[in-house]
Amino acid sequence: MPEVLVTGGCGFIGSHLVDALLSQGFKVRVMDNLSNGSLENLKCGQRDKLEIINGNLTDKFLLDSAVKGCETVFHLAAHANVQNSAKDTGIDLENNTLATHNLLEAMRRNRVDRLVFASSAAVYGESGLTVLDEDYGPLLPISLYGASKLAGEGLISAYSHLYGLKATMFRFANIVGSRRHSGVIYDFVSRLRQNPSSLLVLGDGSQSKPYLHVSDCVAGMLLGFEKSTKNLGLYNLGTPDSVAVRDIACLVASEMGLKNVCYSYSGGERGWQGDAPQVRFDISRIRTLGFKPKFTSLQAVKLAIKETLKEI
Amino acid sequence: MPEVLVTGGCGFIGSHLVDALLSQGFKVRVMDNLSNGSLENLKCGQRDKLEIINGNLTDKFLLDSAVKGCETVFHLAAHANVQNSAKDTGIDLENNTLATHNLLEAMRRNRVDRLVFASSAAVYGESGLTVLDEDYGPLLPISLYGASKLAGEGLISAYSHLYGLKATMFRFANIVGSRRHSGVIYDFVSRLRQNPSSLLVLGDGSQSKPYLHVSDCVAGMLLGFEKSTKNLGLYNLGTPDSVAVRDIACLVASEMGLKNVCYSYSGGERGWQGDAPQVRFDISRIRTLGFKPKFTSLQAVKLAIKETLKEI
Repeated sequence: MPEVLVTGGCGFIGSHLVDALLSQGFKVRVMDNLSNGSLENLKCGQRDKLEIINGNLTDKFLLDSAVKGCETVFHLAAHANVQNSAKDTGIDLENNTLATHNLLEAMRRNRVDRLVFASSAAVYGESGLTVLDEDYGPLLPISLYGASKLAGEGLISAYSHLYGLKATMFRFANIVGSRRHSGVIYDFVSRLRQNPSSLLVLGDGSQSKPYLHVSDCVAGMLLGFEKSTKNLGLYNLGTPDSVAVRDIACLVASEMGLKNVCYSYSGGERGWQGDAPQVRFDISRIRTLGFKPKFTSLQAVKLAIKETLKEI
Repeated sequence: MPEVLVTGGCGFIGSHLVDALLSQGFKVRVMDNLSNGSLENLKCGQRDKLEIINGNLTDKFLLDSAVKGCETVFHLAAHANVQNSAKDTGIDLENNTLATHNLLEAMRRNRVDRLVFASSAAVYGESGLTVLDEDYGPLLPISLYGASKLAGEGLISAYSHLYGLKATMFRFANIVGSRRHSGVIYDFVSRLRQNPSSLLVLGDGSQSKPYLHVSDCVAGMLLGFEKSTKNLGLYNLGTPDSVAVRDIACLVASEMGLKNVCYSYSGGERGWQGDAPQVRFDISRIRTLGFKPKFTSLQAVKLAIKETLKEI
């Protein structure tokens, strides 16, 4: 089986992808700077088929050795912490935009021409209840994370045209499941563990988005990667339904067996600056390749709550 | 009258914009690294109202002093030479994407919240004969220049949402006129001067795009800047018609009084890698602000040929 590189392979989605690739018999190289990811996430892997390179995508020499000889690169490494971005507006630019350019250059130098890229619904910006297909425009992101993912898509698109890169880009919905140590579920679980009697919900709680379980996300990525015949494929990867944040709060409390939790709301339409309060996804395009998420948004959230409760 | 900063103000479009701003009574600061621009372009200006800062947008300290006290920044500085990009894929990233981020940070530090940005039709990628309005998607640029302009739009969009920046972004068609020392007209004139008997046309000559005279471009920018009431305005700035490259070749020869020029074609559908051979622009949105280009594409090209012949 050919060798593949997974950037960010020690992270939440990356480590699940590595598990799936190993179980399919691939030899897997992982490049991760362990800023968010953890070696713990890969401890179940078949270590003889797994190589881990600890380093940054800003390190061009290390990147060359990581890319060399690989057939495909799955590029999942990214900075995705919106709170950090607010303090340092260059952090997404460096870790996402520039890192993606570095990777593309390393691939070009080493004649590796197959890329799978984790983009995000954040490129769509604030689109309200519009059901977003991949041809939606204008693309006016409202977060620096979204801006960096849009920049990544643009670079990959240009490389595909100019240098024959074959790329499949996935715009992820909210991905949930085990090993995720951020986001609304992790946050609610952590805070209810600290104080089981009350929970502050950011925004007015009506924010409502599609949630995809990480197992469906990995399955969709591998399917799109195998089946997409285009030189440049672009796919929404999510669920066509949604769950409201206030419902997630109740589901977490219920799963924890808590009654009489007092919910309060920070107010406003969005959870934080750069948060698109309403997102609706059209997944027709990836459905045509045979994608069928096993879990609805609600089922994915429920499962992820159980998984998170086991972990923390 | 308030003070404004024009980045790239010694360049082709920038210098025409500076002329217009000075004639309207603005005090104008120009920041330009003179890589493409020239002080010659500003020699007619009212020097008492004009300050020129020679430097790069990568120089954050200089940028601070350039931005400080300005009411509005017109950001036109960019690397736009596709031949150079092919040799150094980081050049657009540095001079366009990173430079735009530097500028946005300098504006945030110095509380300057009004920006006019020169984006490009290159963000649309290869869209064939589709008439492009501003909501067209997907945005899949085929050049690194296009990718960098898309990245710039994304950054500005995020800054507008996060930090209250008021921005007007213009996607330029091909802008032609005096002081342009690149592009198809300049190229044809230069080569026919060297050899009046034959002319090589890149591509098969059928490439056909909208051309806007630089006087209309400057008028459109100033109109959009004045009249746009949105926090984030996005406007195509061009003509709704087009001219084919082979027709430009004949027009140049004719204006030079040359007969029996032997035209040859390098072949292929596009002039160079990263060139979108067909572009059609919808300018309805800027028309609603009162924009009416004085010149059609054909008239703009004819006028620009005359102007170029006077200059070289």
